[in-house]
This record gives sequence, structure tokens and C-alpha cells, in this order.
Amino acid sequence: MRIGVLGTGTVGQAIGSRLVELGHEVRMGSRQAGNEKAVAWVSGAGERGSEGDFSDAAAYGELLFNCTAGEHSLEALDAAGAQNLAGKTLIDVSNALDFSDGPPPAVGISNKDSVGASIQRRFGDARVVKALNTVNADVMVDPAKVPGDHVLPICGDEQAKPGVVELLGEFGWPAERVIDLGDISRACGMEMYVTLWLGFMNSLGTAEFNIALAR
Amino acid sequence: MRIGVLGTGTVGQAIGSRLVELGHEVRMGSRQAGNEKAVAWVSGAGERGSEGDFSDAAAYGELLFNCTAGEHSLEALDAAGAQNLAGKTLIDVSNALDFSDGPPPAVGISNKDSVGASIQRRFGDARVVKALNTVNADVMVDPAKVPGDHVLPICGDEQAKPGVVELLGEFGWPAERVIDLGDISRACGMEMYVTLWLGFMNSLGTAEFNIALAR
Repeated sequence: MRIGVLGTGTVGQAIGSRLVELGHEVRMGSRQAGNEKAVAWVSGAGERGSEGDFSDAAAYGELLFNCTAGEHSLEALDAAGAQNLAGKTLIDVSNALDFSDGPPPAVGISNKDSVGASIQRRFGDARVVKALNTVNADVMVDPAKVPGDHVLPICGDEQAKPGVVELLGEFGWPAERVIDLGDISRACGMEMYVTLWLGFMNSLGTAEFNIALAR
Repeated sequence: MRIGVLGTGTVGQAIGSRLVELGHEVRMGSRQAGNEKAVAWVSGAGERGSEGDFSDAAAYGELLFNCTAGEHSLEALDAAGAQNLAGKTLIDVSNALDFSDGPPPAVGISNKDSVGASIQRRFGDARVVKALNTVNADVMVDPAKVPGDHVLPICGDEQAKPGVVELLGEFGWPAERVIDLGDISRACGMEMYVTLWLGFMNSLGTAEFNIALAR
């Protein structure tokens, strides 16, 4: 599949590299074509990797990942262009970490709203699914890094979800460990969880962990 | 031990009943002595249960539980009186659920602040430990209701924690499943988690679940 990965940070690079490894063709998008990190990524990614601006990467992808910082995702997607998102599955991996008051960060959009929901509101023709933002980048693309039956909550567009679950399966997430929380309004809880995630990380001394559900 | 339980709701009743069952003497506190729910609770609790207003229950307890609704906890503790909290361990079980905009609730205090931290700020001589707010009332007092090695994050006053861990052990929480997140500032993540908890509850169709940590 041709996939557009918007964002050149740790998350975009981890997801882009894993997708290429799985045989997909990936275009990494950033504010301007020729972005230093994107070019470096392409040189390591081999012939299935390419880069361009947000609009170019979004037009290229049959499916898109939003790996931009949540505080700036709407801007980035405006630059990508609504017409390049329409009808496509957009997997939103972002967290809106607000460091304006120093660490630890606040959650920039919270309580009844979320980055995921605000993207779906602004781009009504995109099929937004929130996923993967509850784990570290390494764990996102290789869940076996953490032992046990830990889980991945997702939420969002009903028609897009089966394809997302399949792609998560390629990453290594068994379908029974993907917990469907419902529509995109549930992204709120998935994004607010980052504050507890930071607490666990601080206490455990590692980012390579995840939650399991006992019931 | 003599314990004051502030609040007469589901959580206060579950904790009060469990403490009495464990042999402690419990006074349930509410806005006014003679509260209908408190009186009904006392009649079921036997000779180790009593009730009174917030101030009476707080004065009575060598250790206190705040089981009032988080949105009103500061008021309730003002009524309890700073002099009745001073030097005592205060286990804050509250969540600030703001239903003013209808369900699902927003988290009334969030992002860099929390009910737990605001209580510690206002009552500097109390030893505040946040605990138990991440699970349903039934699970709080009987963790074996949920199978598996699920966990309970806590945070707060360092001197008070060992006693809290011991009391949680009486409830059935093994010490190795109590995850110390650090000081009371970490209550923020523990309280913001309620939004994801509500998502899991909605998806699982039960409140009898909890998270485990895979690492």
C-alpha cells in the first residue's frame, strides 16, 4: 500500500521504517520538502521510501498517519489539504503535549475534546481513527518488545477501523488485544491518559511498558 | 484503628464497611450529623460504626479517607477543619467529575493540578496520599474481584505511604501491586485517567476491571 506519514519525529520515523520493512511504499511529509530529518530517513529507508511536503505526502498516500505534534496537527493537516485527506483513513497517533509551563507537560486539548476529535471535525471527509498514542514509539511498531497481553485502545470511524486493525496486526498487535472504545469522542480518554503514562514511566524507569486489562 | 470516612456515597460506604469488617472503628462524616445514608450505614455496620458531621468524623479518626465528590472536597475538608486533619494521613479517593455539560463527565480539575494536590496545598499539615480512585468501589476494597496482577498507583506524602500500603494490604492489595508514582503532583495523571477508565468500562460492559502493567 502507498502510505503517507506526516511528521518527521521519533514516531514518524519509527512508523515509516516499520511500514517500509513490511513492504509498503512510504512518503514522509513535513512542512517543506527537503526537510533534513526526512531526507536522512529516506536515505536509510531504501527504494520504498520518499519524502515531500505535507500536501505531497498526503496526496501520495492511500492511507495516512498523523505523526505530527498534537499541538500543531490541525495546521499540518491544513497544509496537507482537505482534498488530499477526503475518503482516506487517517490514523491519528498524536498527543498534544503542552510544555509552555515547563515539564511535565499539560495535555493541550483535553476534557470532552481531543486532537483526534478536532481533526475529524475539521476534516469531515477523512476517516479518522485514533490509535497507538498510548505507547512509546518502539512499542507501537513492535509490541513484542513488551511481554504479556497488553492492549491498544482505538476509536473512531467505523468503516476505517477494520483496515486499521489489519495494519496494526502487521505491526504485531493481535486483533484481540486491540480494544475498540467506540467513536472518535473516546480519543479524549486516550489522550488524557498520557499524564498517567508519564507517571508510570517515571516510576518504572522505562518507556517500554504498556497496560493490560484485567477483568 | 479509629478511622474517619468523609462522604456517604457508594465509595464511602464500601470503604467504611470494609474497614469495620477488618476490625477498625469507623465514623462516617457528612455535611450534617444524622444524614440519612450515614444513619442507614451505621445500622448495618454494627457497634464499630458511627456517624457525625465532617468535623466530628475528622476529629475522631486517627486516619482519614476523603470519599467526597472531588468537585466539593475542599469545601467538605474546610468543614472538617484544618486542626482535625493536621498530622494525620488523609487518603484521597476522589475524582472530580464535572457533569455540568452532561455525560460523559469532564475532569473538573486537570492538567498540572488535581483534587489531591489542591487538598495538600490547602491543608499543609495533613499527610495526603492519593489512592484507589483508579478503580470501582467494589474493586477498591476487594481487588480479588478482578483476577490477575492488576495494579494500584498511589502518590503523595512519603511518611504516610508505608501506613497506606499496609492498609491497602488489609483490603487485599499486595504491596508489589501498589505502584508508587512519587509526590502528590502525580495525582494529576491518576485523576485524568478516569476518562480512559470510562472508555474501557463502556467497551467492556463492566466496571469490574483494572489495568495491569506489562513491562
